[in-house]
Amino acid sequence: MINCELFTCDAATKKLYEKAKKERIDTVWDRALAMQPQCGFGEMGLCCTNCSMGPCRIVKVSDDGPKAGICGATEDTIASRNFARAVAAGSAAHSDHGRDIALALYHATGKIRVKDEEKLFKIAGEWGIAVEGKDASRIAREVAEKALSEFGKIFGKLLFLKRAPHKRQNLWDELGVAPEAIDREIVEVLHSTHMGSDADYRNIIRQAIRAALSDGWGGSMIGTELSDVLFGTPVPRKVEANLGVLKKECVNIVVHGHEPTLSEAIVMAARDPELLELAKKQGAEGINVVGMCCTGNEIAMRHGIPMAGDFFQQELAIVTGAVEAMIVDVQCIMPSLATVAKCYHTKLITTSPKAKVPGAIHMEFDEQKGLDIAKRIVKEAVMNFKNRKGEVYIPDVKSEGEIGYSLEAIIKILDRVTNSFAHPSGTVKPLVDAIKSGVLRGAVAIVGCNNHKQPHNSCHVTLAKELLRRDILVVTTGCGAHSCIKAGLMSKEARKYCGKGLATVCELLDIPPVLHMGSCVDISRILVLLSEVANYMGVDISDLPVAAAAPEWMSEKAQSIGLYAVASGIYVVLGVSPAVTGSENVTNYLTKDLESVLGGRFEIEKDPVKAAEKIAVHIENKRKRLGI
Amino acid sequence: MINCELFTCDAATKKLYEKAKKERIDTVWDRALAMQPQCGFGEMGLCCTNCSMGPCRIVKVSDDGPKAGICGATEDTIASRNFARAVAAGSAAHSDHGRDIALALYHATGKIRVKDEEKLFKIAGEWGIAVEGKDASRIAREVAEKALSEFGKIFGKLLFLKRAPHKRQNLWDELGVAPEAIDREIVEVLHSTHMGSDADYRNIIRQAIRAALSDGWGGSMIGTELSDVLFGTPVPRKVEANLGVLKKECVNIVVHGHEPTLSEAIVMAARDPELLELAKKQGAEGINVVGMCCTGNEIAMRHGIPMAGDFFQQELAIVTGAVEAMIVDVQCIMPSLATVAKCYHTKLITTSPKAKVPGAIHMEFDEQKGLDIAKRIVKEAVMNFKNRKGEVYIPDVKSEGEIGYSLEAIIKILDRVTNSFAHPSGTVKPLVDAIKSGVLRGAVAIVGCNNHKQPHNSCHVTLAKELLRRDILVVTTGCGAHSCIKAGLMSKEARKYCGKGLATVCELLDIPPVLHMGSCVDISRILVLLSEVANYMGVDISDLPVAAAAPEWMSEKAQSIGLYAVASGIYVVLGVSPAVTGSENVTNYLTKDLESVLGGRFEIEKDPVKAAEKIAVHIENKRKRLGI
Repeated sequence: MINCELFTCDAATKKLYEKAKKERIDTVWDRALAMQPQCGFGEMGLCCTNCSMGPCRIVKVSDDGPKAGICGATEDTIASRNFARAVAAGSAAHSDHGRDIALALYHATGKIRVKDEEKLFKIAGEWGIAVEGKDASRIAREVAEKALSEFGKIFGKLLFLKRAPHKRQNLWDELGVAPEAIDREIVEVLHSTHMGSDADYRNIIRQAIRAALSDGWGGSMIGTELSDVLFGTPVPRKVEANLGVLKKECVNIVVHGHEPTLSEAIVMAARDPELLELAKKQGAEGINVVGMCCTGNEIAMRHGIPMAGDFFQQELAIVTGAVEAMIVDVQCIMPSLATVAKCYHTKLITTSPKAKVPGAIHMEFDEQKGLDIAKRIVKEAVMNFKNRKGEVYIPDVKSEGEIGYSLEAIIKILDRVTNSFAHPSGTVKPLVDAIKSGVLRGAVAIVGCNNHKQPHNSCHVTLAKELLRRDILVVTTGCGAHSCIKAGLMSKEARKYCGKGLATVCELLDIPPVLHMGSCVDISRILVLLSEVANYMGVDISDLPVAAAAPEWMSEKAQSIGLYAVASGIYVVLGVSPAVTGSENVTNYLTKDLESVLGGRFEIEKDPVKAAEKIAVHIENKRKRLGI
Repeated sequence: MINCELFTCDAATKKLYEKAKKERIDTVWDRALAMQPQCGFGEMGLCCTNCSMGPCRIVKVSDDGPKAGICGATEDTIASRNFARAVAAGSAAHSDHGRDIALALYHATGKIRVKDEEKLFKIAGEWGIAVEGKDASRIAREVAEKALSEFGKIFGKLLFLKRAPHKRQNLWDELGVAPEAIDREIVEVLHSTHMGSDADYRNIIRQAIRAALSDGWGGSMIGTELSDVLFGTPVPRKVEANLGVLKKECVNIVVHGHEPTLSEAIVMAARDPELLELAKKQGAEGINVVGMCCTGNEIAMRHGIPMAGDFFQQELAIVTGAVEAMIVDVQCIMPSLATVAKCYHTKLITTSPKAKVPGAIHMEFDEQKGLDIAKRIVKEAVMNFKNRKGEVYIPDVKSEGEIGYSLEAIIKILDRVTNSFAHPSGTVKPLVDAIKSGVLRGAVAIVGCNNHKQPHNSCHVTLAKELLRRDILVVTTGCGAHSCIKAGLMSKEARKYCGKGLATVCELLDIPPVLHMGSCVDISRILVLLSEVANYMGVDISDLPVAAAAPEWMSEKAQSIGLYAVASGIYVVLGVSPAVTGSENVTNYLTKDLESVLGGRFEIEKDPVKAAEKIAVHIENKRKRLGI
């Protein structure tokens, strides 16, 4: 048995891992241990399987062994191709999510009323859609159509690129990285990395940048914005977090995955009086819906649903023995869930045609019949309550935090403080003033997943605390957000971790020092916030005293996010290295040279304390160059 | 030094490989030898690098070692995901090629006259584009726009699917595999194979089928059809083939890659009187343009330009010392060419923004300024003539054959024989009659690449000869076509290899027994031919006594082609196994179960003689079931 003290700082995780071991359940950590040693060729990005002449492996560690693939591809070509394909896959996952939301909005028009008409009208205005004489429903349909056309339009650049500072837009044009249709950019990565196409690592990464920008300023931004239109733009609210939010006496439903269309319907269905009555008949006190991973972030932000846990806690949720159903859609769903669920009474229910899991029950979700299907799914869970077996153990570990800091919410808070009714669309002036004065040194986004290569949660949390004490504001999304709320960093009491300046700002604005901005696709909110600040200051994003960090990332989506952040001018510190270290050129290009090209670059730093130091130096350098 | 007798049956290849060794030039075979042993995990499809928790490797050969990835992905999930991603990349490469041709047609309209107006009008008709009162130029633009919209349209299925037999279309609809927009299907493969999305191998392969059909009945078909519109539909003509087509006294230009836009312009430029004059001033007798790989097929079919060689001969072309410039666009360009070219005077010139090669000269081609750029490129070659150094050796090995059997050409020949003026759009009746009578037992497409895992050319050639003697007609494309023409199988003398029935048919129709149908994207021509035959007979493609074989395939494009052929109802024999053998389920699904679903399946058979036997059995079974 692994000593779980070494791999996580989260108390609930430790307790449930012990239960898992007692019950002979293998978890992600056990499988990671069994996988050691991992293939060094793969870890360094030196393995190529892009054609069936391969696999080819480049040997870097000794003079012997092949220095080029069978086609002649060097380590630079192979490592950059692998990197580009990972970015393309990440961008595909995010963007396809955006497409599904756009389709949901398209099909919803005329049937339901959108929740944020103000945002709908704003987007219509940005996209040149005439609104006069049209009702919200018609505008919603036109916006949805225009959004869908962003994925495959024949000519023209992405519409949301215009949100970036002018300098940034011009730079993208000069470098030839301003993306056109989202899907096309992703497909072009696959083409250019096909056997015998691009062999020039810089050019390969250039196309990867196009695909990544298609994610951040395309698919993800569409996902976020249209989710807000359809389901409401988040506002600050309190929620509880960690596996202690499960309730022994209730029917527990864990909603897990990414797209809010499913989870919104489940939340509604779980409030259905008939189903509540049925739950009582089964001996339960009620129906307790909780969210996991990015779905957890989505429904917490919009409905105050508890955030049950992060990527590495998904198996442990089932190990409690208290989960009647785990309902999943797409991405970050461990296939192992089916195996774990079999050892308990939990029903694993898959809902997306894009993500089936052998051993799970498949109940396909269709947003056009959303509530009906959701009710059937919830009923499955309710009827499963009486099937609990073995020990039910819910660790008494939970935290509370304030979440839901959408850009609009942040601006509203800033407006409230400045009382600036003169600026109708809101202003970032107080934020800029705080940065300029030096009370706030800068801001950092802590994002990303969990990865067995880093201690669970503790990298996120350590990094956050190190930044807070340096008067650096932290914003967070995804599993980074789960880590922070579990560690109490989204409560107002977390001001105790802050330097004097940041503590003052938090007090003045009545905010926690770590701001929850949503799910992983919602990193697009951060791009817009940075653009607003840069525009207000008349500079580029790359001039700002900001940075991003993904200390525990694991998914291809994170590689796409990292690259679009770099391409937007941001310094991005990764706790786990992408598989490129076998190529000195590619590694140098991503971690050094790109800065002179795009103003942003990657930094690989495993240690969160050192990462914080590097970020602080970066921020102070940016301040100096701004003359503040 | 490797004994080249073992790895190729081609005389020119043997001679030049010896020169290469004498001059200490490493070729693909040497690098393949240096790469041994290749990674067994990769070869079996049991290595996963889809997230940075990996690489994960499943151990199948012993009881020890991990049986699931760190996320819990089984060998079925991992192998099917790897397979699906390869298919997606292949479809991306082909489809992007189709898009580029559509863009070329779009930009050409109003500037040049399209070469095949009849085909233009036919496609306009199929796609519901009104032609009345419009000139060809306007129709061409509308067709180009409609073609471009196939890649990213929001709703609706691919237009060319309607060319398939009704039974096939209905089957695709029932199975949910009828593709929508091309790019979208490819992107969805990446999404569904992302960490934590699809874990069900059947469902993963279902999405791969959508992406593959997007290639065959989408991107590739658009590529073929619009190339014909723009540059002319091929007609039968004689060409020479093999490296002996290089001319010692001429400026030799090898055009290599895939897209006809570049090669068409180079062919025109090389006829420019000023450049010819310049060549003479440099001491050359003229300018000799020859084609390699699929570009070789494209310009041979349309201009009678010699087919210099296949995928494995690209380095050897330079080793002759007689090539002034090798001009490449995309796909199947070995990055090693730059290294080889450095040892000679050859200029390697890259032209596509999607495919740069370190060490090459980049002269970006732009179809809007096509001829001007082409002239500059040809001039580079001409001015390089005087820089030849070392021994120039062109092996005296070449063959002659008749090529250019587009569907239209085949139907014209059949019409001529039957004199059937009653059927204005042509008829496949004589072909069907020959099959029904049993004079012809069936037809097989031999396609695909070269791969060091199989002896070069000899698999293609042996298989073809084995089929011919069984009265099975062979059609071929790509490097399969290069192999066949080099072996003399496209000459009328090749009738000596045929059984009595096939020999009679060839004599009657005045055709060779192996019909050259073009480049790899032109496999779409075969789909249309099969549809015409099936429709004429009132059956589905899967009912026909036909098969396909890729005995030496290596590229991801080949995996896409193989899968769309299977999904179109065809029995596909592969000489090299896709990397799925580590999963018994995936292997069985692709090689057995798919037949009951789609009417087609894969067969893995390394030995071409055995492959021919299996194909013959398959064909006779199909005949029996048809009652013929």
